[in-house]
Order: sequence, then structure tokens, then C-alpha cells
Amino acid sequence: MSKEKIAIAYSGGLDTSVMIKWLKDKYDAEIVAVTGNLGQTKEIEGLESKALSTGASKFQFVDLRKEFVEEYIWRALKAGALYEDVYPLATALGRPLLAKALVDAALAEDCTMLAHGCTGKGNDQVRFEVTFASLAPHLKVLAPLREWEFTSREAEIAYALEHNIPVSATKKSPYSIDENIWGISIECGVLENPMVAPPEDAYQITTSPEKAPDTPTVVEIEFEKGIPVSLDGKKMSGLDLIIRLNEIGAKNGVGRLDMIENRVVGIKSREIYEAPAATILHFAHRELERLTLEKSVFQYKKNISQDYANLIYNGTWFSPMRKALDAFVNETQHPVTGLVRLKLYKGGVTLLGRNSPYSLYNEELATYTEADTFNHKAAAGFIHLYGLGLKTFSEVNPGY
Amino acid sequence: MSKEKIAIAYSGGLDTSVMIKWLKDKYDAEIVAVTGNLGQTKEIEGLESKALSTGASKFQFVDLRKEFVEEYIWRALKAGALYEDVYPLATALGRPLLAKALVDAALAEDCTMLAHGCTGKGNDQVRFEVTFASLAPHLKVLAPLREWEFTSREAEIAYALEHNIPVSATKKSPYSIDENIWGISIECGVLENPMVAPPEDAYQITTSPEKAPDTPTVVEIEFEKGIPVSLDGKKMSGLDLIIRLNEIGAKNGVGRLDMIENRVVGIKSREIYEAPAATILHFAHRELERLTLEKSVFQYKKNISQDYANLIYNGTWFSPMRKALDAFVNETQHPVTGLVRLKLYKGGVTLLGRNSPYSLYNEELATYTEADTFNHKAAAGFIHLYGLGLKTFSEVNPGY
Amino acid sequence: MSKEKIAIAYSGGLDTSVMIKWLKDKYDAEIVAVTGNLGQTKEIEGLESKALSTGASKFQFVDLRKEFVEEYIWRALKAGALYEDVYPLATALGRPLLAKALVDAALAEDCTMLAHGCTGKGNDQVRFEVTFASLAPHLKVLAPLREWEFTSREAEIAYALEHNIPVSATKKSPYSIDENIWGISIECGVLENPMVAPPEDAYQITTSPEKAPDTPTVVEIEFEKGIPVSLDGKKMSGLDLIIRLNEIGAKNGVGRLDMIENRVVGIKSREIYEAPAATILHFAHRELERLTLEKSVFQYKKNISQDYANLIYNGTWFSPMRKALDAFVNETQHPVTGLVRLKLYKGGVTLLGRNSPYSLYNEELATYTEADTFNHKAAAGFIHLYGLGLKTFSEVNPGY
Amino acid sequence: MSKEKIAIAYSGGLDTSVMIKWLKDKYDAEIVAVTGNLGQTKEIEGLESKALSTGASKFQFVDLRKEFVEEYIWRALKAGALYEDVYPLATALGRPLLAKALVDAALAEDCTMLAHGCTGKGNDQVRFEVTFASLAPHLKVLAPLREWEFTSREAEIAYALEHNIPVSATKKSPYSIDENIWGISIECGVLENPMVAPPEDAYQITTSPEKAPDTPTVVEIEFEKGIPVSLDGKKMSGLDLIIRLNEIGAKNGVGRLDMIENRVVGIKSREIYEAPAATILHFAHRELERLTLEKSVFQYKKNISQDYANLIYNGTWFSPMRKALDAFVNETQHPVTGLVRLKLYKGGVTLLGRNSPYSLYNEELATYTEADTFNHKAAAGFIHLYGLGLKTFSEVNPGY
Repeated sequence: MSKEKIAIAYSGGLDTSVMIKWLKDKYDAEIVAVTGNLGQTKEIEGLESKALSTGASKFQFVDLRKEFVEEYIWRALKAGALYEDVYPLATALGRPLLAKALVDAALAEDCTMLAHGCTGKGNDQVRFEVTFASLAPHLKVLAPLREWEFTSREAEIAYALEHNIPVSATKKSPYSIDENIWGISIECGVLENPMVAPPEDAYQITTSPEKAPDTPTVVEIEFEKGIPVSLDGKKMSGLDLIIRLNEIGAKNGVGRLDMIENRVVGIKSREIYEAPAATILHFAHRELERLTLEKSVFQYKKNISQDYANLIYNGTWFSPMRKALDAFVNETQHPVTGLVRLKLYKGGVTLLGRNSPYSLYNEELATYTEADTFNHKAAAGFIHLYGLGLKTFSEVNPGY
Repeated sequence: MSKEKIAIAYSGGLDTSVMIKWLKDKYDAEIVAVTGNLGQTKEIEGLESKALSTGASKFQFVDLRKEFVEEYIWRALKAGALYEDVYPLATALGRPLLAKALVDAALAEDCTMLAHGCTGKGNDQVRFEVTFASLAPHLKVLAPLREWEFTSREAEIAYALEHNIPVSATKKSPYSIDENIWGISIECGVLENPMVAPPEDAYQITTSPEKAPDTPTVVEIEFEKGIPVSLDGKKMSGLDLIIRLNEIGAKNGVGRLDMIENRVVGIKSREIYEAPAATILHFAHRELERLTLEKSVFQYKKNISQDYANLIYNGTWFSPMRKALDAFVNETQHPVTGLVRLKLYKGGVTLLGRNSPYSLYNEELATYTEADTFNHKAAAGFIHLYGLGLKTFSEVNPGY
Repeated sequence: MSKEKIAIAYSGGLDTSVMIKWLKDKYDAEIVAVTGNLGQTKEIEGLESKALSTGASKFQFVDLRKEFVEEYIWRALKAGALYEDVYPLATALGRPLLAKALVDAALAEDCTMLAHGCTGKGNDQVRFEVTFASLAPHLKVLAPLREWEFTSREAEIAYALEHNIPVSATKKSPYSIDENIWGISIECGVLENPMVAPPEDAYQITTSPEKAPDTPTVVEIEFEKGIPVSLDGKKMSGLDLIIRLNEIGAKNGVGRLDMIENRVVGIKSREIYEAPAATILHFAHRELERLTLEKSVFQYKKNISQDYANLIYNGTWFSPMRKALDAFVNETQHPVTGLVRLKLYKGGVTLLGRNSPYSLYNEELATYTEADTFNHKAAAGFIHLYGLGLKTFSEVNPGY
Repeated sequence: MSKEKIAIAYSGGLDTSVMIKWLKDKYDAEIVAVTGNLGQTKEIEGLESKALSTGASKFQFVDLRKEFVEEYIWRALKAGALYEDVYPLATALGRPLLAKALVDAALAEDCTMLAHGCTGKGNDQVRFEVTFASLAPHLKVLAPLREWEFTSREAEIAYALEHNIPVSATKKSPYSIDENIWGISIECGVLENPMVAPPEDAYQITTSPEKAPDTPTVVEIEFEKGIPVSLDGKKMSGLDLIIRLNEIGAKNGVGRLDMIENRVVGIKSREIYEAPAATILHFAHRELERLTLEKSVFQYKKNISQDYANLIYNGTWFSPMRKALDAFVNETQHPVTGLVRLKLYKGGVTLLGRNSPYSLYNEELATYTEADTFNHKAAAGFIHLYGLGLKTFSEVNPGY
């Protein structure tokens, strides 16, 4: 009756399976297991029966893909959000949405607690719990992996076998992998040594540049107000466009990333990412901005990009700061409409051309042919005043 | 006696050749022609006789390469200065040094005026004249190309022929090219259309990715306090290292850049650059910083990089702002010592490994094996306080 | 027929009066004189007859006060825009609106040119002309004061007398003064010496602190979403509120500013300002933000404030940058609703209290009494992770 | 023998007195009590006998005042560090120095642990512990106030009486007060209500503006490279200068601050500060910078100021970030030499004049008299190019 009811962010893997049983026992609680679909391709079969047989009284599978693309990925793309200039934030963008879906389920089911399966040294615990604090500050949060008694994977497996929790028969990958349509994160194993190049088996979807086709692939992407709307001349949904670009990019070895990054919790970690579509779209979007954004907006937005990326990475998606940055970004995207033509070849993305009805490149001003309409004489006055402050400084501080 | 004496930044090309004669006549002046060597490979033969025969009374050829590398390029590299995130600023970095060399010559020769051969719509006029204003505010500055009567190249050639100024017999390139060891700028011709991909003949030194070797080249670069000191295990001077990396990179199709950029003078232009060594070194330096810079320094320095790049691009090298930014940057570089191993392949630069005695990557903290020493329980308290502000905001602004 | 028609920003003073005649003659042009009312108290009587008798064929007096308050001043207030942390930008905010009013009149009257009466070394010419370039890029712009032959005020007066242009009989103030409801700018005369304190006669509306009442005045200002809506409990229009606060503040010696500032055109100038209402409202608004803005928004917005102020000062009001900054600022102002109580006393503004339904100050968290609900134990974990990066840095770089 | 030895940051108040006994018992430890002198005027008599009689085996009183002024306060002053634009960071600047002194003592005495008397919701625990982590990462840190069993002041007093720990007979102030020469922090009691103006008894050293003298006090401060070196024409040490300015300022009601601020630990608190010397010196220093810093340096440094203030407030003084910011700041201070004349009157600080051999204010450029040497005609060219980007934007985006 006054029993606790816990909504769990469930993936079907060992950790969250053991969590169901462990929490159920520890809190004498009813368990609602919730899995969100962000486009991951693994571990989505048979989740319901697995969850229920493990002890959950309810299972929900929520398709979040459209919302993920339109409310999360496109915002990040328009903002130019690449963490530390590299990582397109696939996992980081997915966490607040998963957390929101969990909160929604918890509220609908009158749960009293929320639980996630993140460890105590990663970023994801922060992203989950900060979202919980924003969306449901009254619900208690549990993080069993930070608290429970299992000190090794073996101990966890022993517990699972003891309680009839199905343990995957397939040999565990030497890597820890997280996947959604915006990208894949790969860590652990030999990757923990920053002097070791990632072995080929670490990559899940991309062909290596060396084995990619010898003939380049050309793609054309059209944007409307900063959002990609067509690929190679075909209008398509954002979801389809990303899926298709992931395929094309992966085939050409595009989107492999290898970085030492600064976690929220004070340590550096080494991460491998695969993100073909994200890599291509960020590149294309940025090139279109070079053509269409007024100079001060273009340069200012670079700082906004970094701040926006930090915010996503740090888990504060549901915040007035994100909304204020979004307002800035959206206002800048009005003219970011046009076409970008790219070449994908053996891991590289090269620009072939860009075009926009709002292009600020004015050939008549820029040209060195006789069509030149630029007022060359204006420069003397410009430079005189532009340099006047430094001239005065030099006169007053000679030899500085 | 009271004759004017003009120091000219001389390249040996048509414009500066015509300038000698034109200025000499217009001002009844003695002409001192000065050419600086920044590592350009073209147009450095026979300059003296050409200058003197054209009317100069003196010619100076100043080897600036070592100073260029050590006082300009290395500063920019340590700062991470890439204009609008792409352009390594080869021409932009060279201009203040050329201008300084011209001022030095002018002061030594008691010149009364300084002249350059830049047009009225480019950035270089700004870089020259702002440097002049900083270093020799009392000298008058002349910019004949903004003022003279020639409205076409044909008119200039006619003037040259009329005054026995040698005009190069070779057919003029359809492109306007500027070159130094840090990179090459290419513009004009078909490049003025941003939907046209650069033709192969626009590139001066790089092989196209498609024609680059099918086998990757591995390079190892060692840095000391942010400065590259050895290549593939061999200590060498900065100049030699850059020259060698340009060769290796160019062979592998590395360092081609194609961008729409925002000029100082209010227009967007389309520029092609080739900068193999700069591309490789910036990449390597940045990766070493990811390993060795404390998080807040790493992230803060990103903004400094952008500001430093803008400052170089905008011509304010000789300024208290540059010195203050240099002081910041230099302080950060103490731990940027170590090794970066890279793969160059068909236009791409890929990281194979990085290592440093000052590495902040701590495998014992980062690992997910049993060697883990991270205090997982600390996370609960961390997240509680980290998210407390947003939690409070949500409680006060429900549904915002 | 093909006669030119020039719209002039007309103030009724000597410069713009002489301009009418001078432009009319020089361009054989019809003159439309336009005066905008921004709340200035001087020189608004008899303008029409003066303009017409001086040679204008049409005169327009446009009341811009409501638009000025609601579309310009309130935006600047919400943004916290104080140039170089001091100047509330009264003149700078007024210029783009005056320029817009002039463009509107010019378009309505089919004018072919626009003219303003600013000198060549001030900021206002920039603000006028950049606005013209944004709003009517096809119209030619004239700046007679930069071009005409008069090299002294005496020469101008001689010209005026010769052409029956009325010259004010009253002795000219030793200062140059610009006034609108958001503040007054005062320059020239002894103020050009930065070691001379402003004489009392330089100030136009404020009592000196020494002569201000010995009893403080308390004021209460209520804000809704960042905009002041009531004063001392009385709802009133923005215009009335500013006028009333100017009176109260001026009486108490509030709002005198004395600064060396950096002009757009490369020089430092010394400016005196009087801005009682602006000073009080910026102070009050900021205090309410301290109470209601989430920490990261509050701190981030400080940078936005500086950038917004620069933008206004530099004359780029009509720009995509201003719109993007506005979007950011507006998004932050939702919770900036509440009351601020202030004491005005002999030049000073002191806070007596602040209150808001969206206050993020939570006494139960902040208190040191037994009502404390803060989780003190969380701090250990927080600090451990918060300081972990520096701890690692120290271990790797001992003695740095 | 293998006994623990704990170095305690000791103030002589109830908390740290109880700590001595409590830690000694709990850890069976030897106690070294360390008090640092930062210029506080209270609680510095009889500390040694009090500490020893309470159970410490050793007591150290370290005079940190000179180091505090020269290595901490002057850096913060040069940086313009005011937290959230208001708070001169007196307590925040003192903490890392106290922590460093404690570490020095602990290392000299072979202590195994460090202990401080801060609560779990304040900033000071962060500042202490982050400094400990930087300077002595191997020492264990104890924060008894976060851990011990006393839930009220009464319980603590009972424990003190039981263990013969002297409890001050004087009635406890209703406020919690921290003091050093750079300022005083006051909190608690009625101050916890942000609608209540601070009662007069909250202020420790300043006269209220209303009771301050009716005649203003004029002060002249001379700076050399950003550091104040003389007061009213008399050279004096930094320490003496601050003490003297505190007296003069306090008498005139200067330096009272009342703010809602954002703590490190996620809450807003309401703080009252008194900081006469800091208020005057920051004001004076800034005015001298307006005169002597080149425009871009002046404006850029504003952001640096905010970041530097945050860093101090957040406790990361001993960090590579602080050193990098210091390097920037120091480089900017070369020309910040000169004189500032101020008027102090009933709580207000007004500028009377400023002067410097490195003044960039050039009367010949700035003047509107006939001595004007500014090139007015240059403005047309300047504005043309300055506004060209916006003009192009408007043409391409009409009506935006």
C-alpha cells in the first residue's frame, strides 16, 4: 500500500537488470522499467519480457526519436555545439530526454523514486540527476551503482545468476558503448591508454579511411533557417536524413573522433566517438553560416557555441540558460538557408560549394576584376581612424 | 637636398615595380626598395638588379625567416590562432614583420615616407599601415594602388613598357597568390564564385587527396612548452621542421582550406589556402593541450585563441593587447611538453597517440577496471550542490 | 524637376540652420527639415518657422518619446547596457531613432539624400550613417560639417548673418550639450582638461550632493519582466516614470557621471553626463536580477550587457546582432518581476530592500538558524570533485 | 607515537575552540593551532593561552598582513576583481592565504591532517579545501562542523562548559562577522530577510552617510603600475595606505555594500560588507585605467576582471588559471601610473581629477577648439567601411 514505486531508466543490460531486483528487494518497491528509443540499434529486442521476468511490474518503451531530432539535435546543430570543439554530444544530448521520459512515466505511474544505472565517475549521472532536479524536484533519486555492494562485474553476475536474472551469453565487448542516432561513444579496455590508437574493432559503424571507397561521394544538403531539410535534392524528415547521412558517412570513413576530454566530475577521460551524420551536418551548417551570417554575429556565435556545448555536456539542458542561448541562436538562423555541396572521401569532408539566397558574399564588392564596385579610397580614412588608438598609445609609450 | 626618400615594400611584381617609378617621379624622391624573405619560393631571384634598373637607388633583401618562425609563428601556434577557426594566418602574420623590416630600413636610411603595394579593399593595407602607425607614427604613408590613375592591369603594363620597366614574359596566373613558409593564399579568377570548387591548378604545393599515396605517413612531433622541437625523433630548428612538415603534408594532400571569410574592411571574400605544416602543427599542439592543460585553462584558452587570431588578422600585432594575450598564453604553456603521433593520409590528419610527463590524464582515476581509485560516493554530494540552483529555480518557476 | 531633395536632421541650432541654406545652395535642392522629440526641453519652440524662414520647404516635428522609451530605453535597461560600466547611453540610444525618423520622412517625401549635422570626430556621425546604411542603403548621405569651408564658429556666424539666418542672441554656453529624457551629455570648455572637476554650471538639472536635501528620499519601483511599471505604488507610463524619477533623482544629486571614454573613432574623450532616472533604474533593475536570475544566467548576462552597450555606443542598433542579443535578454527577463526599495541621499543610491514572487533567495536554505534545510554533508563530496582537477594538476606539476 | 597530528585553522571563537578538544579526543591526536593575522582587530588577544588551555599542544600566530597586501590584495586590485560587480572579496582573498599558512605549519610540524572550522553551506570550506588539495594533496582534511553531533549552538556550549573550554562571557552578536584589512563580511540575524535594510548596529566600522561629516574629504592617490604607492602626497606601505583609507572612508560613510550573491554551493545568500579602502582603491584604479589603457585592452580586461573575481570567490587561487590571468593583468598595468583625486562625501566617492604621464587622452585630438588636430575627413571613409557589412546585410535581408 504505502509501498514505494520506483521508475528505472532501463537498458536491458546487466547493470539495470540487476538494479530491478536489487531495488525491488531493498525498498520493498514496485518497479516501473522505462526504455527510451533514441535510435540505438542494439538491445531493443525482447526488453519487455526481460524486464518483467527480472521483477519489474511494468515496462514502457517510448519512441523518442522524432523529439530527439527536432527538439534536441537540431538545437545543438543550430548552436554549433561541439564539446571542446570536437564531440557532437550524442550521449549528452540524449540523457536529458531520457530523464524527461522517465519523469513523465514516473508522474503518470505515481512513482515515489527515480533510479538510473550510471556510475559515480561519469557525466551521465550528473545529466540524469540535474534533469530530475529541474523537472521533478520532489522525487527521491537513487543511483544504485554508486551505492551497492558489488565491487566487480563478477560479483554482479553471481548475484544475477543467483536471482535468475538472464545474463547475456555473448562474450562481453571489451569496450563500453553507448549509441544513439547522433553518435556512438566508445570507452574502456585498451582505449584507456592514450598512446594506443583505437583498434579497428573499437569502431562500430564506420569503415576505416584506408578501406573506404577509392571514389569520393558527393552529397548536397539543403538547410532552411539552420535546419537540414533535404539531402541530394530529396526532401526528407530529419530522422531519415540523419540515418541516411550516417550510412553514407560511415561508408566513407567519416566521423571517427578520438579525444581526451574534461569530464564534469574533475577528471580527464579518453573517449572514442563515431558520428558520421553529426560531423557532416555540423561542417555543412558552419559553412553556410560563413556565407550568410553578418560578421559580428558569426564571430560572437562562436563563443555561444562553446557555452552551449558546455551546457549540454554538463547536464543543464533544462535551465533558463539554455533557453536564453536558444533564443539567441534562433534569432541568428533566419538567413541560414541554402545549399552546401560536399565531398566525402576516405575519412575527410571537403567543401565543394555553397549557395544561399541570403548570401552576404557580394562578388561585385569582392572581385578584383573590372566589375569591382568597392570604394578603394575609403580605406585611407578607415585605416587612419582604425589605427589612431594604437598610434596614440605608441606615441605615449615609445618602445613599449 | 630636401628631397623625399621613400622606403618601399618591394616584391618584384608588376605593382611594386611600377610603384618605384611612379613614386620617384611623383614625389621627386629617392627610393629604397626592401624585400623581406619569409620563406617564399617565387620571385626572389634577381630582385636587386630589377629594383635598381627600375629606379630604386637602394635595394635591401632581409632574411626574416628565423624571426618569423620564432617571434611570430610560434606565438600564433601556442595561442592556437586560427582565424574563424580555419585560417592559420600565414599572410596575416607575415605583414607586421615585413612592415617592421620596412620601418627599420626606413629609419636606418633616413626615409621620410613609407609605401606599400596593397589595394584598397584588402586586409594587408590595414596590417601594414597599423604597424607603421605603431612603430613609426611620424612617417608619412603612401598607398599608390589606392591613389594612382591606372584603372586596369593593361594601363599599368602600358606605363611599365613606356618606362622600360621589365614586365614578366610568362603568362600571368589566373590567381593572385601570396606565399610564405606558414602557408599560401590563393584568390581571384574562378575562385570568386563560391559555388565553384577550386580547380586543381589553383593549388601550388599540395597533391590532391585522391592522388596522394595509398599508404599513410606516420609522423611524431615533440613539443617543449608549446613549441615543436623535434620531428620523427630528430631535433631540428623551427624553420627546418616547418619546411619538412610542409613537404610531408603536401605530399599527403594535407592542408587545403577553402573558406568564405570576413575581411577587416567590411566584406566577405572567398579564399583558398594551402598550409600543410600549420595544419599539422595546430592539430598536434591542440591534442597535447587536451592532455596537459587544466580544464578551466583549456576551455578559457579557446576564447583567447579566437581573440588572438582576430588580432593578427586585423593587423594589430604591435599592440598592448597582443602582449597581454601573449602573457596569458605563455603562462599556460609550461606543461605543454610531450609527444604527439599522427597519421597523414589522403588529406586527413588522424591522431595515433599522445604522451606527456605532465599528462593530467590519470588512468587510475579514469579506469573502469579494478584499479579504479575514484571516490564514487563523492558524486552524490557533488551533484546535489551542483544542481541545487536549478532545483531552486524550478521550484520557484514551475513549468517555465 | 530633377532637383535633389534632402532630408535634414534639424535641431534649430546654428549648425543645422546654416546647413539648410548651405545644402540648398550647393545642391540646388529642396530641403525637408525633421526634428525628433526625445524629451529634450530646450530648442523645441518656434522650430517650424525658423526652419522655413531659413530655407526649408517643409518641417516635421515627430514625437518619438513613447517609442524611445518602449523600444529603445527599456531594451537597454533590460540588457543592463552601461557603456564602459558607467554611461547609460542616452544620446547613443537616441541617434538610431532620430535617424530612423529621418529615413521615414525622407522616404515619405521622396528625398534623394539624407543629411546630419555631426562633426567628423564624434560618435554621432557613425550612429546616423550606419543607421542610414541599414535602413536606406540607396540614399546618399551628406555630412556638411565634415566638408564645408567654415573653419571656425565665427565664420559660420558670418555666413548666417549674411544669409539672414537667425542666430541666437543668448550667449552661447561654454559647453556642448545634448539632451533627452534618458540623460544629458556635456562636453567642451574646461571639461577638456581631465584634471579639472566639472564646475557647477556644467550641470543642467542636478543639484550638487552638498546642496541636496539633508533628509533622504525613499522610492519604491516595481518591475514586470524587467520593465518598471510603477513608482511609489502608482502605476504609470514609462515616460511619466522616467520624468518623475529624473526630478526626484536630480533633486537629490543623483546621476552625475564624469568619465574618460573610448570613442568609436579612435580617441579618448572626457564626458560629463547627468542621468538621474537612468542611474536609479539601472541600479534597481540589477538588484532585482540578483534576486531572481539563476546564477549562470546572472553571470553570463554581465558579458551580454557589455556587448549590448558597445553595440549601442558604436551605432549598430539596426543589426542582426542587436536582435540576437535582445532575444537572449528578453528570455532572461521572465522572472524579473518584483519590488525594489531605494534611498536617495546626497548623490547616493542605497538599497533598502528587494522582493519578488520569483525570488531565488531561499531563506530555509540560506539561514544559519535551526530552520536550516541545507544538506551540509553534501559539501564534502562536492568539494572533493570540484577540486579534483586542481589536485591532479598539483600532483603532476609540483611546485608550479 | 603513530599518533595523528592535526593542524587547525584557529580563530579563538567557540567553534574552533570546541574543535580542538573534539578532534583531539576523536582522533587521539596532537593539535597544532594556527592563527593568521590578516589585519583583523578582534579576537587576537590571549589566543595562545586560550588555545593551549583548550588542549592544543602548540600555537602559532602568523603575521600575514604584508603578504596579504602585496601578493593577494594588490593582484585583485590590479585585476579589478569585484565579485558580481560589487564585493571586493576580502574574506575570499584571505582564505587561500590562511590555508597556505596552515599547510606551511602542518608541513613544518609533520602533521597528518588539516582541519578548518567552516560550515557545510558556505564558500569558505571550498576555499580552504581546494587550497589544501593544491598545496598538500597528500594530507587528510577534516571539517568537524560538517560532521559533528552538535545540532545547535547550545549543544556546543554545553560541550564547552563540560570540558572547561572558555566561552566568551559577552553576549554574542546577532550577526556572524568576518574581518580583515580588505573588508568585513556581516551576515545572519535580520539580515537574512532581503526586504529588511541593514540596521545600524550591523555595521562595524563605517559611519552612516547621514551622520558623516557635512564637509567632504578630498584624497589623492598615486599609483605605480597599477599599485597604490602614496596617499595625499605621502609615500607609504600598502598596509599603512589601506589602514589609513579605511579610516578616512569609514568616517565618510564610504564602503557599505548590501547584496544578494550567488554562493559556490548553489544557493543565494544575502551579505553585508564594509570595505572603505577597497571601494576607494578600486574606484581610483579603474579611473586611472580609463585614462591610460588602450581601448581594446580596457574593454577586454573587463571580462578578465569578472573571471578573476569568480576565481577568487570560488576558491581556486592556487591554480594555473590564476597565474595565466595574472600574467595578462600584469602586462596591462605598465602604463597605469598616475594620480587620482577623489572626494568622499556622505557615502559617495566622486572623481575630481586624474592625471598620468601615460595618459592616452590627447587634448589636441579631442578638443573642439581651434587647436583640433583630428582629421575630420577621414571619418567618411571610416564609416563607409565600418558600416559596409550591415549595409550588405540590409540589402540581402530587406525588412529583417
